[in-house]
Amino acid sequence: MFVETIKSDGLAHLSYLVGSEGVAAVIDPRRDCQIYIENARKRGCRIDYVFETHRNEDLVSGAPLLARLTGARVCHGPNAAGDVRYAETTHEGDRYTIGQCRIEVLETPGHTDDSLSFALFDDETGGDAVGVFTGDALFVGDVGRTDFYPDRATEVAGLLYDSLQKLFALGDQAIVYPAHGSGSVCGDGMASREFSTLGHERRSNPSARIRDRDTFIEKKLAEHHDQPPYFRLMERLNLEGAEGFEEEMLRPPILQAEEFEDAREQATVVDVRGIADFIGAHMPGSLCLPEDMVTAFAGWLLQADEELMVVAADLPQAQSTLRHLYRIGHDRVRGMLLTPISGWASGDREFRQLAVVDREEVARRVAGQPEDWSLLDVRDANETAEGVIPGAQTIYLGNLPEHIDALDRSQRITVVCESGARASIGASLLLREGFRNVDVFLGAMGAWEESGGDLADGR
Amino acid sequence: MFVETIKSDGLAHLSYLVGSEGVAAVIDPRRDCQIYIENARKRGCRIDYVFETHRNEDLVSGAPLLARLTGARVCHGPNAAGDVRYAETTHEGDRYTIGQCRIEVLETPGHTDDSLSFALFDDETGGDAVGVFTGDALFVGDVGRTDFYPDRATEVAGLLYDSLQKLFALGDQAIVYPAHGSGSVCGDGMASREFSTLGHERRSNPSARIRDRDTFIEKKLAEHHDQPPYFRLMERLNLEGAEGFEEEMLRPPILQAEEFEDAREQATVVDVRGIADFIGAHMPGSLCLPEDMVTAFAGWLLQADEELMVVAADLPQAQSTLRHLYRIGHDRVRGMLLTPISGWASGDREFRQLAVVDREEVARRVAGQPEDWSLLDVRDANETAEGVIPGAQTIYLGNLPEHIDALDRSQRITVVCESGARASIGASLLLREGFRNVDVFLGAMGAWEESGGDLADGR
Amino acid sequence: MFVETIKSDGLAHLSYLVGSEGVAAVIDPRRDCQIYIENARKRGCRIDYVFETHRNEDLVSGAPLLARLTGARVCHGPNAAGDVRYAETTHEGDRYTIGQCRIEVLETPGHTDDSLSFALFDDETGGDAVGVFTGDALFVGDVGRTDFYPDRATEVAGLLYDSLQKLFALGDQAIVYPAHGSGSVCGDGMASREFSTLGHERRSNPSARIRDRDTFIEKKLAEHHDQPPYFRLMERLNLEGAEGFEEEMLRPPILQAEEFEDAREQATVVDVRGIADFIGAHMPGSLCLPEDMVTAFAGWLLQADEELMVVAADLPQAQSTLRHLYRIGHDRVRGMLLTPISGWASGDREFRQLAVVDREEVARRVAGQPEDWSLLDVRDANETAEGVIPGAQTIYLGNLPEHIDALDRSQRITVVCESGARASIGASLLLREGFRNVDVFLGAMGAWEESGGDLADGR
Amino acid sequence: MFVETIKSDGLAHLSYLVGSEGVAAVIDPRRDCQIYIENARKRGCRIDYVFETHRNEDLVSGAPLLARLTGARVCHGPNAAGDVRYAETTHEGDRYTIGQCRIEVLETPGHTDDSLSFALFDDETGGDAVGVFTGDALFVGDVGRTDFYPDRATEVAGLLYDSLQKLFALGDQAIVYPAHGSGSVCGDGMASREFSTLGHERRSNPSARIRDRDTFIEKKLAEHHDQPPYFRLMERLNLEGAEGFEEEMLRPPILQAEEFEDAREQATVVDVRGIADFIGAHMPGSLCLPEDMVTAFAGWLLQADEELMVVAADLPQAQSTLRHLYRIGHDRVRGMLLTPISGWASGDREFRQLAVVDREEVARRVAGQPEDWSLLDVRDANETAEGVIPGAQTIYLGNLPEHIDALDRSQRITVVCESGARASIGASLLLREGFRNVDVFLGAMGAWEESGGDLADGR
Repeated sequence: MFVETIKSDGLAHLSYLVGSEGVAAVIDPRRDCQIYIENARKRGCRIDYVFETHRNEDLVSGAPLLARLTGARVCHGPNAAGDVRYAETTHEGDRYTIGQCRIEVLETPGHTDDSLSFALFDDETGGDAVGVFTGDALFVGDVGRTDFYPDRATEVAGLLYDSLQKLFALGDQAIVYPAHGSGSVCGDGMASREFSTLGHERRSNPSARIRDRDTFIEKKLAEHHDQPPYFRLMERLNLEGAEGFEEEMLRPPILQAEEFEDAREQATVVDVRGIADFIGAHMPGSLCLPEDMVTAFAGWLLQADEELMVVAADLPQAQSTLRHLYRIGHDRVRGMLLTPISGWASGDREFRQLAVVDREEVARRVAGQPEDWSLLDVRDANETAEGVIPGAQTIYLGNLPEHIDALDRSQRITVVCESGARASIGASLLLREGFRNVDVFLGAMGAWEESGGDLADGR
Repeated sequence: MFVETIKSDGLAHLSYLVGSEGVAAVIDPRRDCQIYIENARKRGCRIDYVFETHRNEDLVSGAPLLARLTGARVCHGPNAAGDVRYAETTHEGDRYTIGQCRIEVLETPGHTDDSLSFALFDDETGGDAVGVFTGDALFVGDVGRTDFYPDRATEVAGLLYDSLQKLFALGDQAIVYPAHGSGSVCGDGMASREFSTLGHERRSNPSARIRDRDTFIEKKLAEHHDQPPYFRLMERLNLEGAEGFEEEMLRPPILQAEEFEDAREQATVVDVRGIADFIGAHMPGSLCLPEDMVTAFAGWLLQADEELMVVAADLPQAQSTLRHLYRIGHDRVRGMLLTPISGWASGDREFRQLAVVDREEVARRVAGQPEDWSLLDVRDANETAEGVIPGAQTIYLGNLPEHIDALDRSQRITVVCESGARASIGASLLLREGFRNVDVFLGAMGAWEESGGDLADGR
Repeated sequence: MFVETIKSDGLAHLSYLVGSEGVAAVIDPRRDCQIYIENARKRGCRIDYVFETHRNEDLVSGAPLLARLTGARVCHGPNAAGDVRYAETTHEGDRYTIGQCRIEVLETPGHTDDSLSFALFDDETGGDAVGVFTGDALFVGDVGRTDFYPDRATEVAGLLYDSLQKLFALGDQAIVYPAHGSGSVCGDGMASREFSTLGHERRSNPSARIRDRDTFIEKKLAEHHDQPPYFRLMERLNLEGAEGFEEEMLRPPILQAEEFEDAREQATVVDVRGIADFIGAHMPGSLCLPEDMVTAFAGWLLQADEELMVVAADLPQAQSTLRHLYRIGHDRVRGMLLTPISGWASGDREFRQLAVVDREEVARRVAGQPEDWSLLDVRDANETAEGVIPGAQTIYLGNLPEHIDALDRSQRITVVCESGARASIGASLLLREGFRNVDVFLGAMGAWEESGGDLADGR
Repeated sequence: MFVETIKSDGLAHLSYLVGSEGVAAVIDPRRDCQIYIENARKRGCRIDYVFETHRNEDLVSGAPLLARLTGARVCHGPNAAGDVRYAETTHEGDRYTIGQCRIEVLETPGHTDDSLSFALFDDETGGDAVGVFTGDALFVGDVGRTDFYPDRATEVAGLLYDSLQKLFALGDQAIVYPAHGSGSVCGDGMASREFSTLGHERRSNPSARIRDRDTFIEKKLAEHHDQPPYFRLMERLNLEGAEGFEEEMLRPPILQAEEFEDAREQATVVDVRGIADFIGAHMPGSLCLPEDMVTAFAGWLLQADEELMVVAADLPQAQSTLRHLYRIGHDRVRGMLLTPISGWASGDREFRQLAVVDREEVARRVAGQPEDWSLLDVRDANETAEGVIPGAQTIYLGNLPEHIDALDRSQRITVVCESGARASIGASLLLREGFRNVDVFLGAMGAWEESGGDLADGR
């Protein structure tokens, strides 16, 4: 019996391949699902089952594709939004045999109404559950968010509390296999450690260790979570089942500079090189969205069916980006440019440098309070609640497209975040929208606090 | 914080890379230790510590090489046999910081006097131990053997009992990271599952769940374990520190058939192809030792400083064999032959076929009880205790070189094991020693029992 | 400008990726065509053209799939059998620009009527052709076979002569890029060297260096070539265009022994392990066809739409076999067994050993001339023409299914080839057909000649 | 028989593995020589010979290491500077057998006095040479430089002419295997095509096709080549034989930002990220030297025994850099920083942006002729001879350290090259030396010429 973790960076999504004696099951497959087929095959296993802990809202499920490719049955919890088309419904207490493993279903609503957990037993050694796949109910260091049903907020927070008690009843010894790790938008407080047990979480998890139902509900209601607009798309796709094979996602052509220049008029140019590259020189009008931040912000900053052109430093970076985009449903990449910006410029094509300022310059401005200058902090509400630079205006980067009119275009705007990365994305958004006078505080809050700069209330 | 398991197939040896914030430690490194350096580097970590749970007797420690290559400190328990030359001594309660991890030393003697366990704490989340590296004290489904000090048998079994209670005091929630998995010679009862927790083992492990010290001692004293002769070599090497880089082990030349033929006089020819290959056709005088059985039997059947020649089906098989041999101290491979046996034979060179018999033929012979025939069962004592074919003589394969004179060379001998694999190795040994009339029962006890054949007492 | 050779082992098929400045062309793609897309992409190129030197008869063309996946144009010569559905027709003198490369079409019939060669010029350096893709017109050390139009034998041999002169007119300096290398069924005399020039071939190629048209024709007419029956299937597929993506070919399930046993009734069991494995122990009724001989003999010994089950030593061997089969149109593999034969046998399932004899035993039989014994030589006509063991009957292995009734089932039959490999395949065929008394001369003609055995006329 | 090309990017160095029937030879191995051992092994070959076409001046020879690891004999030409310590001397006409290959030595001096070529014959097919390893005598599209003996310039140019005639006598059909491809400092005119024949070069190579000895000498004497200062080091190392295994080069630790900050005082910080990254933000005082330009400029800009610290975008980029540095003898890398510059800055550490200007701005300045501004063109003499921007001062980037005092520190200096890449390196050098007012023309001569800008005489 084995449990293999397949992690998707960016999304911090965790899926699992469980197997024994030639049979395997996959829990929460991602869309690029060849990896499950290959890994099962390497272990001499056939995939008989796909279990979904819930209808994911932050990524496209690979369950329908995987079922089509392997003939596996897909098991999903009862869903009020209607039946998941590619799945059969499974309920509390249902049992599935995978060689010497036994999977037992626990209904653990709260994060969503259809949330299931799957307890894992080993018939070879017997005894209590050896592990449990907890989906978005319980993470290492956090519990699932409960903000998806605003009008039933108290009820669903309570449901999650009850679900956690049901999980803990499996015993301290059970290893926890959650659907997300540190870095996911599905929870803020996850530990960087990727393994834990019910016993450890029962005593050390700041939320899960709460022994009083009302206190727990109160804590959950006080939390703030952002909801990227692409969640709506994911929910629809994960009800219907998404089409499209992963082999197709590597197809967009690599264009020469002149071809790219011609084609970019009809599309959004996404520059996925590093932050420093974008600052150094970039194509006018392009959106700064470094490859390692694509999963975090594409769902906020790109439209579902937007046509995209990708600027990357090299092919691996471009392909990694394509994979990230595919996982969240962005299939419409029309071409890629891998030419370095010096090559682009040597064809007498336009480029822009993004102005950056350092901590000393920002301190000078803050002290001088110039009338034609404003400071825009694009960190999220949890971060800005810890304090902001005096005078800063706060708009979370994800919400910037929606709230852009709140900014004064006549002013010089300095964008700030924790290190300067998200600030650069924000600055590129402003420049795309026609703002003329934008710079980025590189080093940002990290440098500000390191140097003992004053903080104002950011709530 | 991460824990990465590095498994060595064959030995079923488990070692670990633990790290956090740019620093890493290795627990029980194997001799081919580049993998730790590479994996640490991929995670952006420097290896600062090497921890040894005990002086291994079944493999060559990679600690001295790894320390030389990285500058890491090696920590080993107090050793009555004298100081481990490449290590510093660590004691109960000593603590080591690895980024946000904390390692705490527990003295857990019993398997050996110098056995340590290392409890793992996460300073990021706090709370109880998240895991424990148990060495050969506690496995998934079994506990360490206690037969290495025959004159102190009761004492050390009791020490192990006490050590287990010390481990369980860490709490049910701690994940167990043992030094061996299923298939190791260090325990018979290990589960095929590769993960567990103290809580699961405390309740489900047939030995560790015993709550009475005397009952536990009694059970340990009743166990039978074999001690391959190479254990002595390993113990010496692991006190002094073994030399030799893994790059060197891939050096032996690939020989042409004529070169091989000339060179084989001074060496033992080890045929590491599959069982069916050896049965089909092999070089006279060669030892059958399939690549996937090298680690299990090389320590029994080969001398420490024996010069070896390897016959393999292809380069990957040969290289995998070399790696296995290197891990247990066999560095003297003089050359390899990758030519298929048909090519060997087409040079008008001698070959032999190994005779096999099937279940019906064996049943006929058992029924007929021919005087000039005997049946040799080479399974181990725990297996033969479950029953043997009536009339079978039992000598464990590992002990066959030592007890070969107990066999009657004038008879036809049929060798049997569970499936026919170990029997083929045994038959090749007899043929090397000049036995003329040897065959193998292919299918063996598996087929015998499947067909409902009679069983006699094999104890 | 680059030329990259993609070689398909087994078929000894050579295809090429040619590119310059972001554009590429493929010459004679094989069916598993992802490799061209990937390699072009790594070099930053888009595939604009697929050139076919002729309609291949020994493998399935990848041109239609590659065109579908990339949008490339497929260029094929004028074909009397009707238009190749997925291609446009190109003619003598047509020119294609690929960055700084220039491809010029030469009609070089003889091997087939639609045979083209493609001369390669480099506009960067200028001058004469730097290379030429010769298809099956000219190989390193041989020229194409001209036996496909038996009623026009003299005419097409003469056409090939003329085509060679047209090629040589390109100049000695041009590098030769043929469609096949040593080991192909498309020529017997190819050199093991994989590179040459027109100059070297013009002077050293035993056929191409002939300066007299009639002598050349005479030599070609005297040649003997075998035509595997699957050539017909290939020709049809390569007119219509074959369906099926290579990802699909890795799909057949790995079966457990009991599943395999149940399923094998409806299919042909092909044992692709090595020769010695098959000799050692195999499933009754299975066809011996080692993975490295699949391409050579599957086209002779398997029917076009036969359902297959594969027995392999491990997954890489099974997957390599599937790839070979896919390349020649065998898409119907129903399952694979990776269990070793000892495991198969331990389930009390039937197995067989294949009897082998050595040179001394064969010499004894030849000397004794037993009446109930015959010797079957399965080498090809060119080989047996060099001499056979006295008394041997000759039937080429490929023709054995067709001529099996020429053999006397009442006799003991010893099968011989060069080393024993093809003989084992032949023996497995006889055993499948119900012959009872079959053995294989391992070492075979190699050993016979090495020991100075007598030879009889085998023509 | 096979010839495998091993190309080292950056150096554009070509080495070869030649083999037949289990034996292989390497021509001109590079220092990281494990690749030859591995590739030979994959082909079932033992390396018996290492042939050196001459004592390389642009890279560290791997011959001594390879000989030590394999036991191969190293063959080198007669060397006036004294015996190459790790080699035996070979002469015109010496022959070496490698299976069915035959290597024959031709003395082909001119580039160096000890230059050899190695003609390759195939005993299987017979006939004229199939190829020739030409070292630095003949390239695809160019011939070797002859500027290493300034006081014998006419003599050695004539020697090269004679050597070329000796090569051409092998016949048009021979494939040319040179020691360098396009991009090497060993020749300016090499074609981007990587394959050719004597016939093609004899007629199309601008230098080699010259049929008059004096004209050839005249052309060679008129050439300009730069000699990086590290050539002296290479010559010494390649007489004595360099130590150090390639495994060691991957050892330098990955440092955290604070560790890096502490350590950098004693070392030169080399920033190997892309040009745009450096422009965007970099560590003050660091040298811009992108990973793909390390081999071209490290030999000019770094001292032989300089201690280095490397700033890279990620581990693969850092490791590729280390490999490049190792190949040219830079073994003293003390540590690496992989932290992004935003992370560096968020620790309140200093950073700098490099100012860039576009074509319009440069045009404005050229038109305005400001007194406090100068334009520095760092392209090489062959490039600037084609024309420069009016008013530009020319100093080749490689010579900039030596001629830095020719620049006026009081002025604003704009650096220009072809695209802006080398200009950025030059600008970083000036900034390191304390220049305050430096910017880079991004797009550079490419953009200037694309827009029809005026050109002045740059000779």
